[in-house]
Amino acid sequence: MNARAEDHLSDRLSPAAALTALRENAPLVQCITNTVVTNFTANALLAVGAAPAMCDIPGEAGLFAGIADGVLVNLGTPTAEQRDAAREAVRAGTPWVLDPVAVGVLPVRTALAAELLDHRPAIIRGNASEILALAGEAAGGRGVDATDGTDAAAAAARTLALRTGGVVAVSGPVDLITDGERAIRVHGGDALLTRVTGGGCSLGAVMAGLVGVCTSLEAAVAASALYAVASERAASQAKGPGSFAVAFLDALDAVAAAPAELDARVADAPALR
Amino acid sequence: MNARAEDHLSDRLSPAAALTALRENAPLVQCITNTVVTNFTANALLAVGAAPAMCDIPGEAGLFAGIADGVLVNLGTPTAEQRDAAREAVRAGTPWVLDPVAVGVLPVRTALAAELLDHRPAIIRGNASEILALAGEAAGGRGVDATDGTDAAAAAARTLALRTGGVVAVSGPVDLITDGERAIRVHGGDALLTRVTGGGCSLGAVMAGLVGVCTSLEAAVAASALYAVASERAASQAKGPGSFAVAFLDALDAVAAAPAELDARVADAPALR
Amino acid sequence: MNARAEDHLSDRLSPAAALTALRENAPLVQCITNTVVTNFTANALLAVGAAPAMCDIPGEAGLFAGIADGVLVNLGTPTAEQRDAAREAVRAGTPWVLDPVAVGVLPVRTALAAELLDHRPAIIRGNASEILALAGEAAGGRGVDATDGTDAAAAAARTLALRTGGVVAVSGPVDLITDGERAIRVHGGDALLTRVTGGGCSLGAVMAGLVGVCTSLEAAVAASALYAVASERAASQAKGPGSFAVAFLDALDAVAAAPAELDARVADAPALR
Repeated sequence: MNARAEDHLSDRLSPAAALTALRENAPLVQCITNTVVTNFTANALLAVGAAPAMCDIPGEAGLFAGIADGVLVNLGTPTAEQRDAAREAVRAGTPWVLDPVAVGVLPVRTALAAELLDHRPAIIRGNASEILALAGEAAGGRGVDATDGTDAAAAAARTLALRTGGVVAVSGPVDLITDGERAIRVHGGDALLTRVTGGGCSLGAVMAGLVGVCTSLEAAVAASALYAVASERAASQAKGPGSFAVAFLDALDAVAAAPAELDARVADAPALR
Repeated sequence: MNARAEDHLSDRLSPAAALTALRENAPLVQCITNTVVTNFTANALLAVGAAPAMCDIPGEAGLFAGIADGVLVNLGTPTAEQRDAAREAVRAGTPWVLDPVAVGVLPVRTALAAELLDHRPAIIRGNASEILALAGEAAGGRGVDATDGTDAAAAAARTLALRTGGVVAVSGPVDLITDGERAIRVHGGDALLTRVTGGGCSLGAVMAGLVGVCTSLEAAVAASALYAVASERAASQAKGPGSFAVAFLDALDAVAAAPAELDARVADAPALR
Repeated sequence: MNARAEDHLSDRLSPAAALTALRENAPLVQCITNTVVTNFTANALLAVGAAPAMCDIPGEAGLFAGIADGVLVNLGTPTAEQRDAAREAVRAGTPWVLDPVAVGVLPVRTALAAELLDHRPAIIRGNASEILALAGEAAGGRGVDATDGTDAAAAAARTLALRTGGVVAVSGPVDLITDGERAIRVHGGDALLTRVTGGGCSLGAVMAGLVGVCTSLEAAVAASALYAVASERAASQAKGPGSFAVAFLDALDAVAAAPAELDARVADAPALR
């Protein structure tokens, strides 16, 4: 176990403290993300208290990344300009989050993800299929939906975390988050979050909002716990996926403003090996 | 009358059966569509039970079309990359839907639509102005809104259907759908669906979700009947266009899960000539 | 004071009359805007009674601007194609609105905004930081959010208005609108409008919808008054930012259809100097 992991173990992870720090600091979050979820992602960031900016063209993205507190690179619809913008942004030295949407299935983004990995994302967030594919252990799923459970990606997540020196968050019915040594599981959430687009993509953005105000492990865990609780709250009020998406943004705002209950969602799992 | 049309006539069209098949198969639907409606379109597909993926860059679009169960090509905001992605996707042999947004008015998309027609879309869905323009019989409307009634486009729809060997769906107060021989009218719907963006565009996407699980005629009819009933249900709960859009996604989910009432919306019209 | 300003002073500005004219004419509004707000912007335009069209590719944008009643150029995510589309559109002679998102901070859009200014936008709409930066008097804020009060930008707004011969609208807690001589303040509004993305961007689009049916000063004032009243109405019904965004679209529709109360929101301020 290295010194960094020991520091983490000596800390008690508190999603509540992380989200309180986010509200106080209103971090500027640069999103290079796909056209399907830009609006929902910006609204999710605003709801939790961050300041989103979708600055994603070459000639501006690198400069803006130097100003931003956190950067999201989501590979959902990676145009040529976005690919160059991502290359600029990850060189700025600002902590950044990689969301490898559909990596493994599709060649352009798969090659880009491999290239970007050398620039050490603070957090990689994906579903199990994407994490397996990114680690080189599977060919990926059908694209955007997970076809493997999170536990199936545990070893791949540890491999990626050790390779990048960052944190890997595997989203699923139970989220699995690791820095290569410590493994955290976040329980709860509602399946309605998978019936609207942007749930996972905006989760990665919220992680990018948190990386400026706490450790990467805390950021990934806090965002996952927030999404679990907010999706349950929204589901209790929704009549279907349309009203769920609306209630979810309301719940993100409410839970982020009063986050005490989140800490109970976090459980340490046996260390991965 | 050819053998194919006879088969259709011998079948009783059942939107309910088509939507049940969609739910059971969760088809993967590739959307190359405009930036205005990507989010709404993905959410509409998820609501009915399909799996959307907006894979729209060259080098990936053709490959993904080979995996997908249906493809939508919507010409609303056709960037150069999207135009090349569309050219790749329609060559994959997967059934695809063409939505010729604003064709006739604008030269880049008009030329592209003419080129794509050679690759025989399973379904062409548009308003009357767009169908008339695509058939070469009018200069098109002001762009996105219909300035002609669906009946005015009946002959043009038949011409296009016979030319492509596919189905043409003309959306309007009463939808007109034809495979060149048989003509079906779908009644109902609510005008609020024209007061929010994405109604027609997402209808084309749902047709692309259905082409993998039933005939093209059934797909176009089932999607149109679903939209008629769901928009009426949503309108009965809405306070305005904002709450209508939300209620419409809820209604798509609810009606697609219990579609029995849809079959009554379908009426055979006299054959077009 | 010049003849044009005298004409304005002799007119009683009526947002209610302007919005009634919009409903009667259903102007066609071309939007070259950012990927984050395309959907919300189109829905806001539809709610007030305009016909939106996001025609933003080279080879089509200039031609379409010749058909449109008003054009919006918003620099939020200016791809190379959008930059060329904007250059085409502003040459068409149709009145157009410039929204200089994050100008001053980012070099590509800052250079483009300077170039486009020569084509005399009918209205420039931005927050105080953007107006200061566009006038060359400040380096801009962090990007999308205002870090200066509207009064701080009063002199810059006057300078820009005199340079372009158009109107400048500075959005903030109290909106400040000037044609270089006359200064109008619009009071009210709710801070929830700043907790969802697209509030300011869609306001610029509504101004582009109005420039075809009234003077530029009336257009900027009427849209600002509409947003003040509609955001207050929506806030009274919202549980959070998600439900606010939905209620806001409903309120735009309702207030635009019965706009009598808007006229009371407009106050003449001392002339700027």
